[in-house]
Amino acid sequence: MMKKNVAILGATGAVGREMLKILEERDFPIEKLTLLSSKRSAGKTLTFKGEEITLIEAADDVFEGVDIVLGAADNPVAKQFAPAIVKAGAVFVDNSSAFRLLDTVPLVIPEINPEDVKWHQGIISNPNCSTIITLMAASVLNRLSPIETIVASTYQAASGAGAGGPIELAEEIAAYQNGETYEPKVFPYPLAYNVIPSIGSPLDNGYTTEEMKMQNEGRKILHLPEMLVSCTCVRVPVMRSHSISATIVTKEKITVEEAKEAFRHAEGILLEDDLPNKVYPMPLLTSGKDITLVGRIREDLTNPRGLNLFVAGDQVRKGAALNTIQIAELLL
Amino acid sequence: MMKKNVAILGATGAVGREMLKILEERDFPIEKLTLLSSKRSAGKTLTFKGEEITLIEAADDVFEGVDIVLGAADNPVAKQFAPAIVKAGAVFVDNSSAFRLLDTVPLVIPEINPEDVKWHQGIISNPNCSTIITLMAASVLNRLSPIETIVASTYQAASGAGAGGPIELAEEIAAYQNGETYEPKVFPYPLAYNVIPSIGSPLDNGYTTEEMKMQNEGRKILHLPEMLVSCTCVRVPVMRSHSISATIVTKEKITVEEAKEAFRHAEGILLEDDLPNKVYPMPLLTSGKDITLVGRIREDLTNPRGLNLFVAGDQVRKGAALNTIQIAELLL
Repeated sequence: MMKKNVAILGATGAVGREMLKILEERDFPIEKLTLLSSKRSAGKTLTFKGEEITLIEAADDVFEGVDIVLGAADNPVAKQFAPAIVKAGAVFVDNSSAFRLLDTVPLVIPEINPEDVKWHQGIISNPNCSTIITLMAASVLNRLSPIETIVASTYQAASGAGAGGPIELAEEIAAYQNGETYEPKVFPYPLAYNVIPSIGSPLDNGYTTEEMKMQNEGRKILHLPEMLVSCTCVRVPVMRSHSISATIVTKEKITVEEAKEAFRHAEGILLEDDLPNKVYPMPLLTSGKDITLVGRIREDLTNPRGLNLFVAGDQVRKGAALNTIQIAELLL
Repeated sequence: MMKKNVAILGATGAVGREMLKILEERDFPIEKLTLLSSKRSAGKTLTFKGEEITLIEAADDVFEGVDIVLGAADNPVAKQFAPAIVKAGAVFVDNSSAFRLLDTVPLVIPEINPEDVKWHQGIISNPNCSTIITLMAASVLNRLSPIETIVASTYQAASGAGAGGPIELAEEIAAYQNGETYEPKVFPYPLAYNVIPSIGSPLDNGYTTEEMKMQNEGRKILHLPEMLVSCTCVRVPVMRSHSISATIVTKEKITVEEAKEAFRHAEGILLEDDLPNKVYPMPLLTSGKDITLVGRIREDLTNPRGLNLFVAGDQVRKGAALNTIQIAELLL
């Protein structure tokens, strides 16, 4: 296999660091690895396969000779450098939401729509983290019968807000343990011993940007332009791994046993479904892992063509860094 | 107003202690207060209106002359003493689930179906905590148009498992802070930095007893024998106050503005709905309070007759102790 010149744009963030770890774990065929950061972090080093790599400040002229750029930066940074990346002939596999809904940009979960990488024009987008974890489960049902609707409520970890999220939660809990007060900065309210039903920015329809991603991105990934998704995104005091409670209605009825059998054989999925024996998905079980857990599968009581299920997955890995690198692997 | 002889059955538990506090706060007209406990706690004292009251061991012969027994004990204890309470001529307002679905026992949320107390035969049941908080919101929509279906996912606090729940969560977090391990006893898995999608006992249909309460009890309280409810109950690392993400479909469409207007005037409800200004229900805001918070009201995207909303309420107060005492007030 031809080794590639790979760059990580935004290498110092939570997702960037996870990418570094996953490239190493999966022994991605790398000729040269370039780590790009903001001016502030440039000059520092990160370790890859026992070797210190010095961070370089991202700039338009650093992409010459790079084959694949893994994007772990936010929307403004992704937008700033995308033209230079494409011009240099590299493929930009981007984690930001900047390009996800463009007609010219494939939006890919390798277990679901790997064929979509073929028509890229230099940019391939990685979907939203909760969307990836939900669709890992939903797509398995969609292969049995097309999905009509999803009602989802999320239980999203602090790390979904970036590396600062878990730090704030840890500091807040430590402060409370010492009887001190704590002023949150990353989250709008204390997350310790609380849940916050607002992630992303408010939209005119009363939903948040985060909540609408599951419908907008889900339609594109599943090739279901009419799928309807109502999502409520809630931050919970968990460090890592998102969970989703979902009610999924398909065109034809799928039985619980048919669903379980399909999950047993689905790539990237582990069926954890044995309630009497206390077997069900939990963030505790998925953190740091690649697998998406699916369980609590049962007939929806409000619709004979509906199934309820609970899904958990590490949103820094499968929800971001891992999925991006899996897309890059499709390009090899 | 005639003063009553009141007894609390199970006075030392989380709900019993809260009842004591609420009786004092609301200046319930009490002639004599009897505090009943297990043999183990008998002889200890609790304070009521500055006075020490000695706990008496519950027994069949202690209910003579009592007008109202507030039940804060579990099912076996409630079942054990119900015959003696009724025989003594007292009214048993019970928090356990032992009698809730009996045709001879009214199941009451005073803001919703106060008229049902009239037909009691000695026992009135207090509904499940998540059910009360969800129905406080749902009943307001039901008055505008009958509810057909509810899909609910809960975010339930540690205190829902009794007084031992928050103690375990606090100890677990303290242990983790000190780099120690902790073996959970109240919950089946660590609750700190985790969510546990299983509350109650497993049933053959894949749901738990706790999850089915919202449909079974909800139908009785709302007088809607055909209402369909799919519920997923999830324990979250919150000390106190349950939250519920609900999708409610009514017979006729209710607009977001009609719903908000109804919530603005609903008894026991505070509308907290201004997403751009970070106003929404959270457990943090309701703990120790009587009010149920409703917000995030928006059109369900999967059904034109559906509304999504988020509700939070203190399940020890409105979900248990307060609702029981409100029922007792209806008896005065």
